[in-house]
Amino acid sequence: MSGCIMPDTMANPLVCDRNIDFLLYEVLDAPSLCTLPTFAEHGRETFDLVLQNSRRFAREVLFPTYKPMDAEPPQLENGRIVLHPAWRKIYPQLCSLDLIAASRPFAVGGQQLPLLLTTLASAYLMAGNLNVAGILGLTAGAAHLIEAFGSDELRQEFMTRMYRGEWTGTMALTEPHAGSSLADVKTRATPTADGHYLIQGAKIFISGGDHDLTDNIVHMTLARIDGAPAGLKGISLFAVPRRRRHGDGWVDNDVAVTGMIHKIGWRGAPSLALQFGEQGDCNGWLCGEPGRGLSCMFQMMNEARLMVGTNGVATASVAYHQAVQYARERPQGRPLSSKADASRPQVPIVEHADVRRMLLRQKAIVEGGLALLATAAKQADLFGHAGTAAERHRAGLLLDLLTPIAKSFPAEYGFESNALALQVHGGYGYSSEFLPEAWLRDQKLNSLHEGTTGIHGIDLLGRKVVAEGGAALVILQEEILATVARAQRAAIFPTLCERLAETMASVLPLTMQLASKGLQGDVEGMLLHSADYLQLLSIVVVSWQWLLQAAVAAEKLAAGTLTTDMQTTERDFYEGKLCAAQYWLATELPRVPQLLALCQQGEDSYARMKPEWF
Amino acid sequence: MSGCIMPDTMANPLVCDRNIDFLLYEVLDAPSLCTLPTFAEHGRETFDLVLQNSRRFAREVLFPTYKPMDAEPPQLENGRIVLHPAWRKIYPQLCSLDLIAASRPFAVGGQQLPLLLTTLASAYLMAGNLNVAGILGLTAGAAHLIEAFGSDELRQEFMTRMYRGEWTGTMALTEPHAGSSLADVKTRATPTADGHYLIQGAKIFISGGDHDLTDNIVHMTLARIDGAPAGLKGISLFAVPRRRRHGDGWVDNDVAVTGMIHKIGWRGAPSLALQFGEQGDCNGWLCGEPGRGLSCMFQMMNEARLMVGTNGVATASVAYHQAVQYARERPQGRPLSSKADASRPQVPIVEHADVRRMLLRQKAIVEGGLALLATAAKQADLFGHAGTAAERHRAGLLLDLLTPIAKSFPAEYGFESNALALQVHGGYGYSSEFLPEAWLRDQKLNSLHEGTTGIHGIDLLGRKVVAEGGAALVILQEEILATVARAQRAAIFPTLCERLAETMASVLPLTMQLASKGLQGDVEGMLLHSADYLQLLSIVVVSWQWLLQAAVAAEKLAAGTLTTDMQTTERDFYEGKLCAAQYWLATELPRVPQLLALCQQGEDSYARMKPEWF
Repeated sequence: MSGCIMPDTMANPLVCDRNIDFLLYEVLDAPSLCTLPTFAEHGRETFDLVLQNSRRFAREVLFPTYKPMDAEPPQLENGRIVLHPAWRKIYPQLCSLDLIAASRPFAVGGQQLPLLLTTLASAYLMAGNLNVAGILGLTAGAAHLIEAFGSDELRQEFMTRMYRGEWTGTMALTEPHAGSSLADVKTRATPTADGHYLIQGAKIFISGGDHDLTDNIVHMTLARIDGAPAGLKGISLFAVPRRRRHGDGWVDNDVAVTGMIHKIGWRGAPSLALQFGEQGDCNGWLCGEPGRGLSCMFQMMNEARLMVGTNGVATASVAYHQAVQYARERPQGRPLSSKADASRPQVPIVEHADVRRMLLRQKAIVEGGLALLATAAKQADLFGHAGTAAERHRAGLLLDLLTPIAKSFPAEYGFESNALALQVHGGYGYSSEFLPEAWLRDQKLNSLHEGTTGIHGIDLLGRKVVAEGGAALVILQEEILATVARAQRAAIFPTLCERLAETMASVLPLTMQLASKGLQGDVEGMLLHSADYLQLLSIVVVSWQWLLQAAVAAEKLAAGTLTTDMQTTERDFYEGKLCAAQYWLATELPRVPQLLALCQQGEDSYARMKPEWF
Repeated sequence: MSGCIMPDTMANPLVCDRNIDFLLYEVLDAPSLCTLPTFAEHGRETFDLVLQNSRRFAREVLFPTYKPMDAEPPQLENGRIVLHPAWRKIYPQLCSLDLIAASRPFAVGGQQLPLLLTTLASAYLMAGNLNVAGILGLTAGAAHLIEAFGSDELRQEFMTRMYRGEWTGTMALTEPHAGSSLADVKTRATPTADGHYLIQGAKIFISGGDHDLTDNIVHMTLARIDGAPAGLKGISLFAVPRRRRHGDGWVDNDVAVTGMIHKIGWRGAPSLALQFGEQGDCNGWLCGEPGRGLSCMFQMMNEARLMVGTNGVATASVAYHQAVQYARERPQGRPLSSKADASRPQVPIVEHADVRRMLLRQKAIVEGGLALLATAAKQADLFGHAGTAAERHRAGLLLDLLTPIAKSFPAEYGFESNALALQVHGGYGYSSEFLPEAWLRDQKLNSLHEGTTGIHGIDLLGRKVVAEGGAALVILQEEILATVARAQRAAIFPTLCERLAETMASVLPLTMQLASKGLQGDVEGMLLHSADYLQLLSIVVVSWQWLLQAAVAAEKLAAGTLTTDMQTTERDFYEGKLCAAQYWLATELPRVPQLLALCQQGEDSYARMKPEWF
């Protein structure tokens, strides 16, 4: 259109490279993982190579396809899904990056890379085009289930092809009447004499449930074996391919696409209603023991949830970078002190304090969230591969605690961040000629899938913080106090340091108080403020992440080696870290006592509220 | 699509009738306005008739057109805008409701109704289909400008037709490089010997800037008369019709549509880029004095801003009602205490405390916002028509204070409310088969148009609260203390009553502290936390509105007349009010001290943040 400034066509970095290096090499000491036998063949060189490939692919190949895919969603034609044509072009390149199995063992065709690294590498892909990254993640997760629970035949037949990207995978859990409540899954599995099962049932919201990319798709499906008990204990896991072997060839496996969801975001990838066994001819193969389907799924859940969290951060990140660029370039208004003196030129809007507030809040959310995800991923690496059982146990507890936060913080605060990126664009942000509105739509899914935010609040308070007598919170406190001590040595934010330590300390008695309610049988009372509890612990955890980053930045600045001109950008980077940390700690930490009081007092308005009172 | 539950087709009330009656007749004593000469011809009968017509039209005619209009936006064909066909059917009915000039004097063809009433009546229209209500509001505002500042000829020629809906009107302020910064408007107006001006320039984001509904459209246009000074003082207001008289007929007035914005919401109405005077033949007529264009606009601003606020509430309201219905009907999961015992049936999700939290928060935002809008509208009525100059002055001060809050609170908290309505719908909420996502998109505009939220923060702190030595805040405090006393007599929420009084008291010294910064020349410092100040005063004001509603509800319940079965719904209504008030006061009021501390301490993270540090 004419008559308005054009959408920004400048390169968007998607994710800040300098920040990735900072997290890997200055904050989290990623190379130290290579002292563990599992990662012994790697070092900074391989890490950097993986990152370099991912970011180049994300920027040069994926990102240019994002807007076209959003504008032209998949079509359902004659019962099959036809993707945007760009998919066919980029998919082979995606597979050649070997990222699907990047964190899996050499033995199954993987690269045995730390999750810390693959998580950050995948952030680029998600920020570039989350539709494509999503299919990759689903395939990795589905193959991982087969790797962990499938028979040798399944691993040979399905897993290897999936890890190579020759086939893709899905998670087929949800049914029209059973989303959050998986206990109500109805899909049936009838044993046959040949060892496989006949699957019959309806699934919905199946991302990547059909497409025209690969010859086959494997649906990891929850179903109930005939005669299984009601509820969660009657659910088993099956691998259900779209096509199955028949003699020397392949035939359709009676998996029908019965509808396409018109999603408001993630519009480049299909989300479908599927019917298994309409003709009574859908074969599925059991993975893991009968009745252990949900338990199998849960073993993969942490990874999937960290993936959703990473997506939330990536979606906020790409919009944040777009907003920063726009704010630096868009002239509008003048300093407040100039009293709108129109004889002076307009200034770029980044000069306005309130615009900087919106940008700094985005930075705090994006980089705080990314640090959290990286930390959780490193704990996952230690949980899986640390040298001693005690280290693995400790890492597992901390990972369990961090996971619901790492999943939901980027979804909730990230949505706010994406809304701010749109707001920075003013009226232009409200048009689909500009990208921020698309990312805002994308982000909204993250509070819904892989467990709603409400579910994660209940998971955190009802399970994670009370496991093993609150051991995870004690570990979190140790970590936070160590960080506070480090920040104090670096002489930054003395008041805020103390406040973080006090705030963390106050979470422990609150948790005990709530847990004792639960022990006395008042589960509803215990969990009444789980949303507030989730938010307050999220603020504490992200504050920890920011204080740690600030401490490292302060140490670097104090080291005084940043003296030449070339190092001005280094200084800028560290100063930005200190500013964002200050913003977060000063603005968000004071919210905790208020949320804590609501939990503590058991504020009972919505407990009392009756359905007919609305 | 098959395979999933169908979108809810139940009737949505849009706005709760009982709540409207509560506000008009129990809280704000609307009939008392009829003791003023201006409104003497009205009474509860006329009020109820207007409301009844509006709500019936909104539910039966407007609402069914909302989704089709959202799905099929206007098209630009051969330089003209073609609206969705439903428009032509409903527009004549809309005009026959006589709502455009409802609050204008009998003398100009209006109904001389209080704004309190027309604001609430318009909430139904906005909730039913904001696209249609938007055009009506714009036409009313444009005609009102001509009424106030136009010559007799313009009033006769343009205004009367616009008030009857024969022509529509627009506000043509924004230019591609001049949105928030109107000082930079460039459109030129060259005087002619015939009394009119030749207009030349580009405008953008002109809502309703073209359509195929009426013969003519009048653009109220800001432009700069040749030789006028730079900046705000050089701007004048013109009426620029799309077609103009020529002899006995009409000719095009050289207003060209140069582009259509692809908006993400309000998709039923066009937002356009217009070019005036491409052929050098665009005539405009001056309204008001030269150089007073912005000042003319500002006289209408309060009304326009209350309209945006009402829209924000209405958009949150319709989604809230949809979410309540969905939550009452959608079975999913079981009580937490049942440990997912699948032998028991699933319960409607309204039974889950966290879902009730999400619904109660929406109720608090929607009904708190509506009470605020109604209060502001009543103050506008008193400002215009109260018996004494002192009453009018007092009402004007309070109205000025409330306006930036009434505009931005529904936009910001309403957006959160709309997101919660979507969240309550779970995965289904993420699909465009369900309506909540559309309202979420609609809502986002309200933080952008008619002054961004950032601008309103600066307006509130930089102008409204410091005017006349802080007189408006003193009035607000009087009102709040009177409400606190009333609530204390009703014996509700003793602790929260005290807290509201204390919180309000703490705003005064903070404001003086900030104002004195400004007086010392540190305008940037004074306004650094205007966003926080806007939020904290919004919370205080909405807390006042909730305490007032709670006090009235408690009085009614205590009166003990609600004894028969028929009155159970009455009791439910009042109990709901008390619950929502408790929720709001307990949850939001404690945020104020924290926001206040940020303002007071001048937390300086984003003040220090340099553009190159992002």
